[in-house]
Amino acid sequence: MGYTDVDQLAINTIRILAADATFKSNSGHPGAPMGMAPVAHVLFNKIMNYNPKNSSWVNRDRFVLSNGHACMLQYAILHLCGYKLSMDDIKAFRSVDSKTPGHPEAHDTDGVEVTTGPLGQGFANAVGLAIAQAHAGGEFNKPGFELINNYTYCFLGDGCMMEGIASEAASIAGHLQLGNLIAIYDDNHISIDGDTNCAFTEDVAMRFKSYGWHVETVEDGNSDLQAIEDAIKKCQAVKDKPSMIKLKTIIGFGSKLEGTHGVHGAPLKADDIKQLKTKFGFNPEESFVVPQQVYDMYNEKGAKGAALEKEWEQLVSKYAGSHKTEAADLKRRLAGELPEGWEKNLPVYSPSDSPVASRKLSEIVLQAIHDVVPELVGGSADLTGSNLTRWKEAVDFQPPATGLGDWSGRYIRYGVREHAMGAIMNGLAAYGTVIPYGGTFLNFVSYAAGAVRLSALSQVRVIWVATHDSIGLGEDGPTHQPIETLAHFRALPNCMVWRPADGNETSAAYYVALTSKHTPSIIALSRQNLPHLENSTLSNAIKGGYVVHEAEKADITIVSTGSEVGIAVDAVKYLKDNHNLTARVVSIPCFEVFDAQTKEYRLSVLPDGIPSLSVEVMSTMGWERYTHEQFGLNRFGASGAYKDVYKKFEFTPEGIAKRAVATVDFYKDVPNLRSPINRAFQQLI
Amino acid sequence: MGYTDVDQLAINTIRILAADATFKSNSGHPGAPMGMAPVAHVLFNKIMNYNPKNSSWVNRDRFVLSNGHACMLQYAILHLCGYKLSMDDIKAFRSVDSKTPGHPEAHDTDGVEVTTGPLGQGFANAVGLAIAQAHAGGEFNKPGFELINNYTYCFLGDGCMMEGIASEAASIAGHLQLGNLIAIYDDNHISIDGDTNCAFTEDVAMRFKSYGWHVETVEDGNSDLQAIEDAIKKCQAVKDKPSMIKLKTIIGFGSKLEGTHGVHGAPLKADDIKQLKTKFGFNPEESFVVPQQVYDMYNEKGAKGAALEKEWEQLVSKYAGSHKTEAADLKRRLAGELPEGWEKNLPVYSPSDSPVASRKLSEIVLQAIHDVVPELVGGSADLTGSNLTRWKEAVDFQPPATGLGDWSGRYIRYGVREHAMGAIMNGLAAYGTVIPYGGTFLNFVSYAAGAVRLSALSQVRVIWVATHDSIGLGEDGPTHQPIETLAHFRALPNCMVWRPADGNETSAAYYVALTSKHTPSIIALSRQNLPHLENSTLSNAIKGGYVVHEAEKADITIVSTGSEVGIAVDAVKYLKDNHNLTARVVSIPCFEVFDAQTKEYRLSVLPDGIPSLSVEVMSTMGWERYTHEQFGLNRFGASGAYKDVYKKFEFTPEGIAKRAVATVDFYKDVPNLRSPINRAFQQLI
Repeated sequence: MGYTDVDQLAINTIRILAADATFKSNSGHPGAPMGMAPVAHVLFNKIMNYNPKNSSWVNRDRFVLSNGHACMLQYAILHLCGYKLSMDDIKAFRSVDSKTPGHPEAHDTDGVEVTTGPLGQGFANAVGLAIAQAHAGGEFNKPGFELINNYTYCFLGDGCMMEGIASEAASIAGHLQLGNLIAIYDDNHISIDGDTNCAFTEDVAMRFKSYGWHVETVEDGNSDLQAIEDAIKKCQAVKDKPSMIKLKTIIGFGSKLEGTHGVHGAPLKADDIKQLKTKFGFNPEESFVVPQQVYDMYNEKGAKGAALEKEWEQLVSKYAGSHKTEAADLKRRLAGELPEGWEKNLPVYSPSDSPVASRKLSEIVLQAIHDVVPELVGGSADLTGSNLTRWKEAVDFQPPATGLGDWSGRYIRYGVREHAMGAIMNGLAAYGTVIPYGGTFLNFVSYAAGAVRLSALSQVRVIWVATHDSIGLGEDGPTHQPIETLAHFRALPNCMVWRPADGNETSAAYYVALTSKHTPSIIALSRQNLPHLENSTLSNAIKGGYVVHEAEKADITIVSTGSEVGIAVDAVKYLKDNHNLTARVVSIPCFEVFDAQTKEYRLSVLPDGIPSLSVEVMSTMGWERYTHEQFGLNRFGASGAYKDVYKKFEFTPEGIAKRAVATVDFYKDVPNLRSPINRAFQQLI
Repeated sequence: MGYTDVDQLAINTIRILAADATFKSNSGHPGAPMGMAPVAHVLFNKIMNYNPKNSSWVNRDRFVLSNGHACMLQYAILHLCGYKLSMDDIKAFRSVDSKTPGHPEAHDTDGVEVTTGPLGQGFANAVGLAIAQAHAGGEFNKPGFELINNYTYCFLGDGCMMEGIASEAASIAGHLQLGNLIAIYDDNHISIDGDTNCAFTEDVAMRFKSYGWHVETVEDGNSDLQAIEDAIKKCQAVKDKPSMIKLKTIIGFGSKLEGTHGVHGAPLKADDIKQLKTKFGFNPEESFVVPQQVYDMYNEKGAKGAALEKEWEQLVSKYAGSHKTEAADLKRRLAGELPEGWEKNLPVYSPSDSPVASRKLSEIVLQAIHDVVPELVGGSADLTGSNLTRWKEAVDFQPPATGLGDWSGRYIRYGVREHAMGAIMNGLAAYGTVIPYGGTFLNFVSYAAGAVRLSALSQVRVIWVATHDSIGLGEDGPTHQPIETLAHFRALPNCMVWRPADGNETSAAYYVALTSKHTPSIIALSRQNLPHLENSTLSNAIKGGYVVHEAEKADITIVSTGSEVGIAVDAVKYLKDNHNLTARVVSIPCFEVFDAQTKEYRLSVLPDGIPSLSVEVMSTMGWERYTHEQFGLNRFGASGAYKDVYKKFEFTPEGIAKRAVATVDFYKDVPNLRSPINRAFQQLI
């Protein structure tokens, strides 16, 4: 296309902005932004389609900075492009409450698609964004109406390449033949420990070819802008494979320390920045400068983007004429609203219904609602038959060429790749047209801890169907029996951890998960059958905690979740018959949701004056917040039939009663016993 | 070597044992054992060196079953070999308290090297075992004395292959040119979701070649025993690369459902087992049968192994003559004992010493003890300069051919591969000659959650140097600031989580970590400087909790860890000056260790009658076990200079004092206030 001096000026502007901002904050990573400024400029100024005035246009090309520590690159380019990111924001880089935090955060900063920084996550998010595009295209595109055809571009560095999550994501992306995905690998040969020779000597291009990717190499990523553009365009033309561009760059290009790890994670020295500015024709005495020609160049690009979106809107208007239902559906999904009345399809149970495993109850929910909630897109990490995550009529999301499904398929075969699944779901959710859920054993959600954390931080609606949720999985044994897992995710802010006790609680978990637009959910589900409880109703359970069995003048409140609530109910009778003690039973399927209820309500569930005992077959950690005493499992489980395992650890009516008696006894002389709901002060939120 | 009918009989015996045991337990995975019986027989009967009567012989070949669900294969073969695993043990497969749990557990079962099942872990453990061998060889072998030259063999399946941890481990193993590692990939084309075509279509051989592995393929892994043997021997001959054998097998070989996922995770039907036995020439009416010829064949092999060990012992005796120091060192290490008096080298501090970041204090410990504890082998996931994990004189563990280090080097460059690092450390610890530690940011220990869990379950001594342990890391922001991480690992059984507050506490953390032979440790360390505390001594801190600042007639106990203890001490003066309240301060650097103290001691630290407040800049979850009220951060952090971030969230003397006042006020009318140390009943352990 013919590059000019203004292009070079723009590139050097980005480099200097990165140096200035990291210098001012005395913190951050100038090296990668300086090295990748050329490709960022080519991509944002010559290639990508986007409208900086509307960062939520669904058919925009997506950009993900997987090497999120290079965020000054992203902030500089978003500023040039005209997103809502001012020069003052850039000057506030890495300061408290700025829009320019140390790593990009999607919910904070206009134009940032996903929250990145923990290495490898962004790359897997990009795979999710690309899947979502392919899926939305499959669903909404019609002859003459290619509504959804954007590309997803992702920058990544050596660190991302080394992370296992990136390998998982690359393998599934290759399998899925995602021709709309173009990853640009900053092959600068430097990581924090120095030359990558010390730990990373694999043949990355061969590795990506083995996954089924198309690979291009750009020998001079520092100045050969035409080669960069050509490589990207070649990748765009490859429609049946994702593409990776191995872009050779010099980290910290222009610095006196270029090409060393000295420029990776620390600001340049003052004199180095001066020589840099002088070398690039900038005034060494000025900082945070963008030449007007550069703004003009990007304004022009922005105007083109606005025009593109306008054209697209016109296409959508026509589409709405000939494809009314689809157009309305797309509009609704993009607004994040569920179809009216969808919740009427949630199954309802009564105590006389037969006991059912909650993983099966989850399957019944999915079967019941998949039709009315078309944005639900599910999957499993190779445990479909165990997680029960696939409704009967489901079509797999697969390249049509495989003969195994099609692009509009709503069931994703993730393979045994939990971590990538978690991050792909974050990308799916970020795209805007689907609500993702994914299954694995609860124990293996931990493999995806890095991705779950980012679901919570970036406030996306993602649902984990986490079956085999305790020692109740039985024979597979301690390697598969979660002990610490619920405590872990309950301690994670903005994450709903559900452990439903029966059918109505399972419906409630899905109801709250689906209607909470900015919070991920983990639904922990049993392998074994569970009875339906007396007072379990949707309206009770969506409060996160409620009284399952009330009793006047109770001696004790037994508080439990999931598969143990039924056993706690059985313990009531045992306590009466054997100890003449009166017990009430409370179920708290979700701490996070229960905590959000009024204090008055919470005190009605866990009242003053009655000692309380929690019962849950895993770590007691966290239960002290709700109960006076805790019966749990602060050790690893055992391999055996689940009833034998429960018996071994005394999670039986007798075992519960024994602890209940001890609890009543322990508190009998305490006057005015307070419920743990009462606190001295409020927590920061 | 010429295979006979007895070999085939042995193979079919294994197949039938797997079918019998899974049938009897009505649970488990017969398919992979039946498919891999031939290679297991060839390996254990013709190739491997081991003495079944002494499973701790250091120079034995190691075997790892990474696809741990196939454990009936391992149990069957260990039984045949003559390890302490009786037919009754096999009949007790997957029942409570058996030696044959649903997945192999190293601390339970003779001959099992590492605990496997969570997919990909075993493969990475095998890399660790191979590194340990190469390292021990580098340290102890001398001209004429090749004491340590064993191979490590690993079986893995499609599931392991898909997991990111395996990719990480394979990449580093290739880089390290581990010629002593031979992985055998059960290429059976079936995973739980069915044909691997649905999710796993990469070219595995090409991928491993890209990592720098040697690759062999065996087309008929079901019956071509000679080809299996030849492939393994070819791999043995490749000394400068790890090897992978792509072994094509039919899952559930012999079953009517062979080659389908129907035999993967469920027992065979009774009639299928009958036809299997008939087909293989066994009596269909008998179960759990091993023909005497098969026992004889394995007894002979066992006798050879015992002779081999005897020869080796003679070599060691000679070695002890000419290399006295090395022989004594090896003997000591294998006994798991530290050198006498090593702890005298631990640094000691007094309050007048300058404040130091605890990550730096950790570096000072490593610098001080590396010489006297030669079994310490460290590393970092590409954060050496941030984790401060490398002592000055350290030599890298690298293939000498790279010119970057040598086999006896004690510092491993793991690359950005936290999950593999965790599992490799488990393998290193299991080998028996080293104590591994590894660094990353605390937040990214979560990437390795799957491996940490297995450190705890398999009871290995592994140390995580987890720096940048809180919002105190400052500018990197919420993506890097742990909130839930300590709660997570504190909830994990048999895992010590340390968060030292100063120099002596850091020394204490290392002291306990190194002397606890069967428990892994995570040492959470600050980026920012910390003052040395008044009563902090090694003998106090190794109790896991102690009184930092005592006061008579105290109004409140402030309990804290790490970087907040110093602020809590400052709050004492603020409370006295501004509110005329008297506060005492307690530090609990490690819950797990504090919990192990006598109740009397714990009550002296957290006495009855005084309200208590915990202060820690992360999730309050778990603190209710020790204190009446909790001041923490149940939300994500913020990007900014660390002092600004602490101020934003009020972790200042004033902010602590505000909550202390509220706490005192809240409990002022409660008579006989009990310390949370008092409990109604004891937990199961």
